[in-house]
Amino acid sequence: MNVRSKLDMEFSKQKGLYSSEDGACLQKSIITAEGYAITECALAVLSDLKEHKSYIFDGGFAQTLDIDASVCNGEINSIWEQNILDVIHPDDLEMKMLNELLYFHHIQKASGAMRFRQNLWQQVRIRRHDGDYMTAMHRLYYIPDSDGNTVRFALCLYGPLLFPMQNCAVVINNINGTNMSLDVSTGKDILSHKEISVLQMIANGMSSKEIARQLSISVHTVSRHRQNINAKLQVHNSMEAYRIARSLGIVI
Amino acid sequence: MNVRSKLDMEFSKQKGLYSSEDGACLQKSIITAEGYAITECALAVLSDLKEHKSYIFDGGFAQTLDIDASVCNGEINSIWEQNILDVIHPDDLEMKMLNELLYFHHIQKASGAMRFRQNLWQQVRIRRHDGDYMTAMHRLYYIPDSDGNTVRFALCLYGPLLFPMQNCAVVINNINGTNMSLDVSTGKDILSHKEISVLQMIANGMSSKEIARQLSISVHTVSRHRQNINAKLQVHNSMEAYRIARSLGIVI
Repeated sequence: MNVRSKLDMEFSKQKGLYSSEDGACLQKSIITAEGYAITECALAVLSDLKEHKSYIFDGGFAQTLDIDASVCNGEINSIWEQNILDVIHPDDLEMKMLNELLYFHHIQKASGAMRFRQNLWQQVRIRRHDGDYMTAMHRLYYIPDSDGNTVRFALCLYGPLLFPMQNCAVVINNINGTNMSLDVSTGKDILSHKEISVLQMIANGMSSKEIARQLSISVHTVSRHRQNINAKLQVHNSMEAYRIARSLGIVI
Repeated sequence: MNVRSKLDMEFSKQKGLYSSEDGACLQKSIITAEGYAITECALAVLSDLKEHKSYIFDGGFAQTLDIDASVCNGEINSIWEQNILDVIHPDDLEMKMLNELLYFHHIQKASGAMRFRQNLWQQVRIRRHDGDYMTAMHRLYYIPDSDGNTVRFALCLYGPLLFPMQNCAVVINNINGTNMSLDVSTGKDILSHKEISVLQMIANGMSSKEIARQLSISVHTVSRHRQNINAKLQVHNSMEAYRIARSLGIVI
């Protein structure tokens, strides 16, 4: 299962997502997204995790990104703004999806009061028509349903990079301004313990045969673990898987 | 005339402020302000420059500031959120008002397209109940009326300081992320040419009598200039006036 599917699944798995019927909550969130676009000139995407739709508003930043304006306004039948994701640098997109998964895990673990008092800032490179990349800032805010608890909406804001970021992704606490990197222990949730062991052994230079022997499993099972690791991390080979897993602190 | 009155006057002087009758524009802006409060936990103040009202929403930051929650929600009959302004450090409040005046001049000079594509970030110290000050970030966005041109609303957002600011106040370009200090030439608009000359001579150690002789005016007129300078800069004496004027680059 790749990262995006994992997010889709985890979003839909939330208790309470189907319980409330509040059109006012949707309407307010749509106006807020449009308000952000107008106020900050941002490219704003409000994704409704319940109805599997997104509402996209551009306040001017799409022009800076050199993204076709026609893809930046309106309603789409997906929570993923594919036209915009398509022009994000593949390496950054991969990290962006992973960070969003880590972040979702992070806020699910947070207590109700703190869950919606933080947001995720990421730095992403976006490809322009001339092929050059420009660096933009991506902010992700989760907005609760009317029950105040379930993550109903994801508000993604694309805007200029306002200050140099030390890490590509930080979680901001909107109450006291502290920021933190995503927790290593959260990263571990993506891969199973067995998969982490296998990946660590691969990183240590062991062959599938050696790994099979050490874990007392068949070579076929090691091979299946490798495939699952690659699929979960959305990569094509173990080298890439290792690179990402290391950057997440899952392996050393 | 003090800075606040000057701002009040300049706001109301805008052409077009009384021409439109668009309740939808007000309603959307109120929802946007509330949306900012909820999404970012900000203390949001939407001031309607036309109707002389403000709508205050707190998403949680008032608690961090240790401001009484009861003063942080609701509608008030003023564009100035006095209860909040009262707990800002007097020096910072003085600079905040001046910067807002400079910023208003700055955007009035900007072409229509660029006018609403920038905003002002300021660092301000806010007094808590225990008497200690904490530093917060204040963002000011002007929102146009439905004509897309007149400054109808001021959206002020109080939140935590997210990154160290090099200057206490910067103008952010929301399209390309560049930031700049407020323009020296804009600062000059606050005082008249004659007042700037007088203040510079005071700074150079000249007495009122010497200034009067040099400018071929009466000592009484010099005295009036001094009073006007102090009033415009919201200070009590020439020393303070000089300090502020120098920080604005009006005098050297």
